[in-house]
Amino acid sequence: MKKWLSPSLLAVFFVLSAIGHYMDWNHTLQFVLSAVAVVFVAGFLGRATESVAHYAGQRLGGFLNATFGNAAELIIAIFLVKEGLFDMVKASLTGSIIGNLLLVLGLSILAGGLKHKVQKFNITLAGLNGSLMIVAVIALFVPAMFLNTHSITDKDTDVLSLVVAGILIVSYIAWLIFSMITHKSYLDDVTEDNEEELPNEHAPAWSKGRSIFYLVLATVMVAFVSEWLVGTLESLTEQFGLSELFVGAFLVAIIGNAAEHSAAVMLAMKNKIGAAVEIAIGSSLQIALFVAPVLIFVSAFTAHGTMDIVFTTIELVAIAVAVFIAKSITQDGATNWYEGLLLLAVYLILGVSFYLV
Amino acid sequence: MKKWLSPSLLAVFFVLSAIGHYMDWNHTLQFVLSAVAVVFVAGFLGRATESVAHYAGQRLGGFLNATFGNAAELIIAIFLVKEGLFDMVKASLTGSIIGNLLLVLGLSILAGGLKHKVQKFNITLAGLNGSLMIVAVIALFVPAMFLNTHSITDKDTDVLSLVVAGILIVSYIAWLIFSMITHKSYLDDVTEDNEEELPNEHAPAWSKGRSIFYLVLATVMVAFVSEWLVGTLESLTEQFGLSELFVGAFLVAIIGNAAEHSAAVMLAMKNKIGAAVEIAIGSSLQIALFVAPVLIFVSAFTAHGTMDIVFTTIELVAIAVAVFIAKSITQDGATNWYEGLLLLAVYLILGVSFYLV
Amino acid sequence: MKKWLSPSLLAVFFVLSAIGHYMDWNHTLQFVLSAVAVVFVAGFLGRATESVAHYAGQRLGGFLNATFGNAAELIIAIFLVKEGLFDMVKASLTGSIIGNLLLVLGLSILAGGLKHKVQKFNITLAGLNGSLMIVAVIALFVPAMFLNTHSITDKDTDVLSLVVAGILIVSYIAWLIFSMITHKSYLDDVTEDNEEELPNEHAPAWSKGRSIFYLVLATVMVAFVSEWLVGTLESLTEQFGLSELFVGAFLVAIIGNAAEHSAAVMLAMKNKIGAAVEIAIGSSLQIALFVAPVLIFVSAFTAHGTMDIVFTTIELVAIAVAVFIAKSITQDGATNWYEGLLLLAVYLILGVSFYLV
Repeated sequence: MKKWLSPSLLAVFFVLSAIGHYMDWNHTLQFVLSAVAVVFVAGFLGRATESVAHYAGQRLGGFLNATFGNAAELIIAIFLVKEGLFDMVKASLTGSIIGNLLLVLGLSILAGGLKHKVQKFNITLAGLNGSLMIVAVIALFVPAMFLNTHSITDKDTDVLSLVVAGILIVSYIAWLIFSMITHKSYLDDVTEDNEEELPNEHAPAWSKGRSIFYLVLATVMVAFVSEWLVGTLESLTEQFGLSELFVGAFLVAIIGNAAEHSAAVMLAMKNKIGAAVEIAIGSSLQIALFVAPVLIFVSAFTAHGTMDIVFTTIELVAIAVAVFIAKSITQDGATNWYEGLLLLAVYLILGVSFYLV
Repeated sequence: MKKWLSPSLLAVFFVLSAIGHYMDWNHTLQFVLSAVAVVFVAGFLGRATESVAHYAGQRLGGFLNATFGNAAELIIAIFLVKEGLFDMVKASLTGSIIGNLLLVLGLSILAGGLKHKVQKFNITLAGLNGSLMIVAVIALFVPAMFLNTHSITDKDTDVLSLVVAGILIVSYIAWLIFSMITHKSYLDDVTEDNEEELPNEHAPAWSKGRSIFYLVLATVMVAFVSEWLVGTLESLTEQFGLSELFVGAFLVAIIGNAAEHSAAVMLAMKNKIGAAVEIAIGSSLQIALFVAPVLIFVSAFTAHGTMDIVFTTIELVAIAVAVFIAKSITQDGATNWYEGLLLLAVYLILGVSFYLV
Repeated sequence: MKKWLSPSLLAVFFVLSAIGHYMDWNHTLQFVLSAVAVVFVAGFLGRATESVAHYAGQRLGGFLNATFGNAAELIIAIFLVKEGLFDMVKASLTGSIIGNLLLVLGLSILAGGLKHKVQKFNITLAGLNGSLMIVAVIALFVPAMFLNTHSITDKDTDVLSLVVAGILIVSYIAWLIFSMITHKSYLDDVTEDNEEELPNEHAPAWSKGRSIFYLVLATVMVAFVSEWLVGTLESLTEQFGLSELFVGAFLVAIIGNAAEHSAAVMLAMKNKIGAAVEIAIGSSLQIALFVAPVLIFVSAFTAHGTMDIVFTTIELVAIAVAVFIAKSITQDGATNWYEGLLLLAVYLILGVSFYLV
């Protein structure tokens, strides 16, 4: 494992894919180089997250990972919003939410469950996460229902979108105050005791300061490499006749969430399922409650006008379906391999449906 | 606090708003007088409920409060049914259900949560309440789905409405038998012990008989003042160009539930969250399972024909959304301020949507 | 009781209804004979199941009962698929799912709850069953949503149906591996200890081998008698002008699930609610995750082409509604008579709606 993640190979492939991208090499070559680079930087990010989680606790570590993971997506999406590509933005937000709730969470639970019979995490936090997810679904679902069944002016649609976006951001900030300040100890993972490892085996190789620096560095690298890879993908997928919806909601989302993937699965296999769940669910909540609303506010200042909060019916169905099954599976605070498999089954059903439409 | 609720001021404003109503004073003056009167009588009702709850236990006290609170709404609605104003009846039933589940429950949990870190109540009762709420949603949702997707005669629609109404009333009566007789002790609030106060501090000022008399008196006063206030509101809102749907589902419902509001929030702040939840959820269940079906049966004897049970799509969405988030938040039998805020966020989203439509 | 189930009377009515069926006697006479025979064979099956459950444990016994009960339905449905009667197949699958989740489960919980104040069963198993049910709903709901909102070729519809069917079968096989092999002991009913009876009172009358033989024999007899009864019903219901949808989803399903009915209710009354729940929910899961997908694969080899997985809107609503209320009621691992009544209320609402459409 150490070999694979060796810093020199990481640097070589990162630099090669950077050169490939800016020199506009052959797209297939660009794709191969940046795909290999993603593997290395995601592995690097996973180690950095784990190290930070060691110092900061599972939940804060999970939050940091989710935030750094989504920073890349937010930046990419702002560029798309500036160009008025609202449909693609919504497709990739949808894909990011379901990708985290089904693919990242599913793989983590499956991988962790194959090594450990039953994995437990904080049931109170699971319940709160579930309620937050339902609020997110409601906030996306209600405007769409009202606008589909009633005629309403464009101006009122903008007002509704901005008000709902404001409510979501306030809810998210209140959540941070609640979970990090007023009820921090209340939510502290009850299973953390069970997860103590032998100190010599798992003591992180890096100091606290260096871990944080590496976390930031790795996240930035993931952001760059992801964008380069996405750039090549779009031209490659044209060859294969894939729809924009499928590319946005699945391919882009899978690659854009590489950071969450690698970190969450790695933590789950070390029986830190609480941190893995926090990354997967925390990341999807951040997308729905913070990234999406921020994009709506940003769009209000662009030449293309305000991006409304109205997602398409199949996007809403996909999000609602992902939330329901993820909530059902996590609400008892215990996971096993079969539950991971169920999440992946739902992801597959959605993927095939999006692919065929 | 005592000053505020002083009986003489209460009487003065009640009488003034009565005179204003029957003498048909200027509407703005009427509005101000009755709005102030509502504050006093709601406070009075809150104290009476609390006193009765002291003698009767939290659950029976909550049930009594919910019943007296809804008696006013039932009476007003019967008058509306007699005049054939079925749409307004359904809008106000919808508003009453979501007002109790989101606004009353949300404010109670938020206010209680700001004073007490975590508040606990009977988890078994929460689960049963959740199941009952889902049955109520199903009973409203299924007929609407069937009638929207299939052509069906008016007579069959009446039959379906009456049968479903009958099933709901039977379910509600069975619920009373279950919760008050066969499984009374099973449901007794497990947290009641934690909530014992120092006897000299909270011993009610009134005897048992006087408390019950005051409860009835206060409820009747709330009913009258609410109606007077509603009367002025309708003409006032015309000036501001508000839709009937918004007025019926939000303004009327908020004022009509003043009794539940004041009692529930006051109990929550005294850490009697079990009684507060019982008032809020119990009241909305009573609306859905008893008040609405009774109105359908009453309508069958009026000149305007049977009121069908078919709510509009956005009313159904509002009710379903309120039930899902309330169920998600209460099902673990513990609440905190953030959960109250989430309920209020959903109420705000629905309010803005109804306002703009 | 023994008298009623006496083997000679059972044999007489079974043979009489067989003769009636193959000699094509008067339909009303056929109906009476086979209806009486159903009562006897269902009772026989109930005793055999109980005896096997004694040797095999509640969960395996429940699984065996569900499987043998559904074997009959699968065989009947294959004949219908061969004749291209896809709509009737889907109606009867729908009826079987909601019949098990609402009628069988409701009657079991009600009957058991009238004898025992509160009945408990394995809460972990209940949670997993709930998640599986949600996956089943998603698998039926997502393709229907995508196909209703987008134009899609017939070939792609077939591909989608076959892929989803494949995912469901894999999920079901993985569930058997999980619940019977890798996590068998984890799921073993925690309440089994509470349900030990006095050995002399309940020791089964039959040996292990004989019990299994009787279970197979009784299931085969139920399959035959059900089919004979269904045959007469179809001509009888024509006289009364019932719709195919109602007959398929209610009458056929009720009779076709006679085996599950009798066994589950009998077990619930003996306080073996865990086995009763396993029969009811296990049977409906088997229909959704195994029987329906197998029928889709079978249809691909028939002259009528592949049966798609797209159920009608009201079928989907009925299934979703049944799953939500069943999940809500079972998720706390405890049941009482009122919860049984709620399930029956929902079944009645659906029944009346289907009848009137």
